[in-house]
Amino acid sequence: MEIKVMQNVLKANDVFAENTTELLKTKGVRLFNLIGSPGAGKTSVLELMIPLLKDKGARIAVIEGDCATARDAQRIATLDVPVVQINTGNGCHLDASQVGKVLGEFSLDALDMVIIENVGNLVCPTGFDLGADEKIAIISVTEGDDKPLKYPRIFHEAKAVILTKIDLIPYTNFSLQRFTDALRSIRQDQELFLLSCTTGEGSDPLVERFWP
Amino acid sequence: MEIKVMQNVLKANDVFAENTTELLKTKGVRLFNLIGSPGAGKTSVLELMIPLLKDKGARIAVIEGDCATARDAQRIATLDVPVVQINTGNGCHLDASQVGKVLGEFSLDALDMVIIENVGNLVCPTGFDLGADEKIAIISVTEGDDKPLKYPRIFHEAKAVILTKIDLIPYTNFSLQRFTDALRSIRQDQELFLLSCTTGEGSDPLVERFWP
Repeated sequence: MEIKVMQNVLKANDVFAENTTELLKTKGVRLFNLIGSPGAGKTSVLELMIPLLKDKGARIAVIEGDCATARDAQRIATLDVPVVQINTGNGCHLDASQVGKVLGEFSLDALDMVIIENVGNLVCPTGFDLGADEKIAIISVTEGDDKPLKYPRIFHEAKAVILTKIDLIPYTNFSLQRFTDALRSIRQDQELFLLSCTTGEGSDPLVERFWP
Repeated sequence: MEIKVMQNVLKANDVFAENTTELLKTKGVRLFNLIGSPGAGKTSVLELMIPLLKDKGARIAVIEGDCATARDAQRIATLDVPVVQINTGNGCHLDASQVGKVLGEFSLDALDMVIIENVGNLVCPTGFDLGADEKIAIISVTEGDDKPLKYPRIFHEAKAVILTKIDLIPYTNFSLQRFTDALRSIRQDQELFLLSCTTGEGSDPLVERFWP
């Protein structure tokens, strides 16, 4: 019973996701779905990258997902880009219907890309297609180099992985070799970006990746 | 439809949880449910605390929840305590039926407490009662001092909060004052334990709390 209804829920979600994909294709807008644990640094990545992407001419809007508060949207709003906060309450992920509704609030003709920062959660958001061009995994050094093995699904689905907080490597037992080995055991063609939002190190290849 | 079935799922879960509570009450065994994000340091807390609790005479067993791998159970097994790993696949939390089954594998008469390390996830595990005496929230310095505000439910339900990785505070913008204010805005009577699993700092009050 539970499984059957879950399948129906996912099927309904997929219809909304397909509508989003179709709409954005006609508008020439790319959609990215950022997925990572609470505190992985998703908002900090946006704070670092959005000004750099804007400098290159990219027109960006952001959708923020959180259980509670509009803190992330407030941080992003200071970057002078359109942003909408979705609060999920006890919900552990964004769904395609929520994203579809929010897209109606943006002037899509004046945008090149929409970035979704999903609810902080390395598990559930992966299962819900939002109609995005791709899922991007964000994981921090301080979460440990074994996490791809323990939470493999997102690392299987995301081609691009952003490893944040690399400035903290010297103060932890994190091994970049073990982390890379873990990633490669899940997916061979992964693109790994090393980033410190504190120092800005590693931002150039990311800008090039998302706005070539 | 989704909501109704979800209510049924939670109701079924609660029956298993009540059975667990009854069983452990008759056996005089306490049950703790550790909840935190991936990489918050849940397993490291167990690695630090279990030997200290054993030295005081506590007889402990552990249930490990992860999407994939038996890595955590392997780490705990070296501490010479009974441990069972549950792999949830794409499941984002443990449920009471899984825990109930595993309890049958322990010799409960020879135990004082069972500690559950839930799947790394700050959202979903909170909603599923496992029949535990209490939920314990584990959160790390590197996740940021605003996380109680953004993921309030677990901090509302958990009386005891363990803040890990305090040795990394000097290398981050984490403010203990902001963190404490955030916690207190959610629940006044919270007990906060500051801990470094790297240096061992803060372990004494925790041992006292869980094995007075």
